[in-house]
Amino acid sequence: MTSQSTPTLQDVADAANVSTATVSRCLNFPDKVAPETRQKVQDAIAVLGYSPNFGARAMAARRTNTIGAIIPTMENAIFARGLEAFQKELRKHGFTMLVASTGYQPKVEEEQIRSLVARGADALLLIGYQRDPEVYRFLEAQGVPVLLTWAFDPVSARPSIGFDNKAAMQEMAGKVIAMGHRKLALISADTGLNDRAAARYDGVLRAMSIAGLDPAQLYFEETAYGIEEGAAAFDRLMALPDRPTAVFCGNDVLAVGALRQARALGLCVPQDVSVIGFDDIELAQVAYPALTTVHVPHHEMGRRAGQALARHLRDGEPMVPMQLRTRIILRDTLIPV
Amino acid sequence: MTSQSTPTLQDVADAANVSTATVSRCLNFPDKVAPETRQKVQDAIAVLGYSPNFGARAMAARRTNTIGAIIPTMENAIFARGLEAFQKELRKHGFTMLVASTGYQPKVEEEQIRSLVARGADALLLIGYQRDPEVYRFLEAQGVPVLLTWAFDPVSARPSIGFDNKAAMQEMAGKVIAMGHRKLALISADTGLNDRAAARYDGVLRAMSIAGLDPAQLYFEETAYGIEEGAAAFDRLMALPDRPTAVFCGNDVLAVGALRQARALGLCVPQDVSVIGFDDIELAQVAYPALTTVHVPHHEMGRRAGQALARHLRDGEPMVPMQLRTRIILRDTLIPV
Repeated sequence: MTSQSTPTLQDVADAANVSTATVSRCLNFPDKVAPETRQKVQDAIAVLGYSPNFGARAMAARRTNTIGAIIPTMENAIFARGLEAFQKELRKHGFTMLVASTGYQPKVEEEQIRSLVARGADALLLIGYQRDPEVYRFLEAQGVPVLLTWAFDPVSARPSIGFDNKAAMQEMAGKVIAMGHRKLALISADTGLNDRAAARYDGVLRAMSIAGLDPAQLYFEETAYGIEEGAAAFDRLMALPDRPTAVFCGNDVLAVGALRQARALGLCVPQDVSVIGFDDIELAQVAYPALTTVHVPHHEMGRRAGQALARHLRDGEPMVPMQLRTRIILRDTLIPV
Repeated sequence: MTSQSTPTLQDVADAANVSTATVSRCLNFPDKVAPETRQKVQDAIAVLGYSPNFGARAMAARRTNTIGAIIPTMENAIFARGLEAFQKELRKHGFTMLVASTGYQPKVEEEQIRSLVARGADALLLIGYQRDPEVYRFLEAQGVPVLLTWAFDPVSARPSIGFDNKAAMQEMAGKVIAMGHRKLALISADTGLNDRAAARYDGVLRAMSIAGLDPAQLYFEETAYGIEEGAAAFDRLMALPDRPTAVFCGNDVLAVGALRQARALGLCVPQDVSVIGFDDIELAQVAYPALTTVHVPHHEMGRRAGQALARHLRDGEPMVPMQLRTRIILRDTLIPV
């Protein structure tokens, strides 16, 4: 890729009157370089139109200081807050985050994993555990470390910094049942493709059986995450002859759709029916009435994930699984029956 | 990077019993390969743990079929819908999208542009026009095409597929003034760093002077995009001795914060004060009362941007600037005085 017209690291070093080592430190760990030095180097880079030659650097050391994060969707900012915190932490350590989104399609995730590995990603952050074992084998073969998040399975050995979706939803369902609710419904994402959704479903079922309720009595609606979809599923539930008094939603987006449809049906939340969300994204506070939901520690999760990956890549520290706590946020959409 | 342990393109071709050309077509334009062939190749890739050697491919042809999109933030899903449509269109043409976000910091955007170029991005999608000319010179020197979006400046020669932020806000402000509002306020993002915010500000001022109002009378609050920030700015406006009857917000996120603060202050929207947003993201419909706002054609903008970049890279078609229409969405937060 080099030619007379392409400036080299040496050219930049000469122009900035620093060593080539300083130039690459500026490129890889900008925060470790004195501001004025960094400015000199950045100016030289800008003037020369220099771009680190990935090919060459990849040959020399496979490090690119790029970390890939692959999320199911960018819609509704479900993952946004966590990713922003992840990126902020990574930047402190001189890493850049590149994001790809899969539309909840495993095949697309696999393509993106290959693409990010081909782009030289030093490591990947992936959402949840569930994927073709071949994918994990591929990543091991490529020597690309993977940190999982948004889920925590106490029995899995794979490093994850996340939370126990089942336990979180079970705690919320237990509380709702303790308030006297017996006719329960759950609007969920596809439990076949989404292990977080499946775990939240299991959490409701577990809470029901602990309380001596028949899990078979749960009204269950499976749909895609989306406000429209949540509204349509809620509409079907309200059309039931013996309709539920409490509707759990697999996430806040579905719950906000349910609230909108309740208004459209002239139903009062929570007087006529309680609605419960999951995630505590900004939508939950903005919704009217403000949504009772399960708070996911998005910011802490992203920050700790960034820390763990940076330390692993830079200092070789092992990535240890870490379970974070969720908590119930009681706002205005749940009352006892 | 090659060693005995690293499988080659030839190994994959042999294992899948196809030509190497077919393998690279599968990697670069999966949609152009028959599903069963593609499956055979994908299986071989998975079994062998093959990853296209970026360095080698970059030497052979600088194409990586990766397009970088750099956005100011992932929070509040301001850019999510447009990017999802952009990615969907790109996938049809065999391109992968990688996203980076800057936190509205020009220096961070510059780092990410360099990083994506170093990762071999074939082209970049950037938000707005405003950036250091050095950045554009660098990209020209690197031969990386850039398409701009979320803004459209009729006088600029740079290819952009976007909308005229000033004209859009001016149309809305004209309508508000025609409803009799004279005491106007604008809660805006930093107009120094954000050319979309600056253009929306100009739109309000222009509408005022056309209507014979003194632009100096506009109450102007500059803050960061965020629900909290919108609430705080609205609170300051409502504390004014002669408070505004209509509050324009630079985007829906600020407007939703304003609505929340209005509730907190015991003010009725729109009876006591009208609130107007910009963007028409999902928040706008979810907000209560539903937000009157300017609809940005997120989906069409993303789809057309993807089309333009794909055709440019694949067929060498020039990228022609394209202005898309916004429209006023009247919901429940604006009434005449």
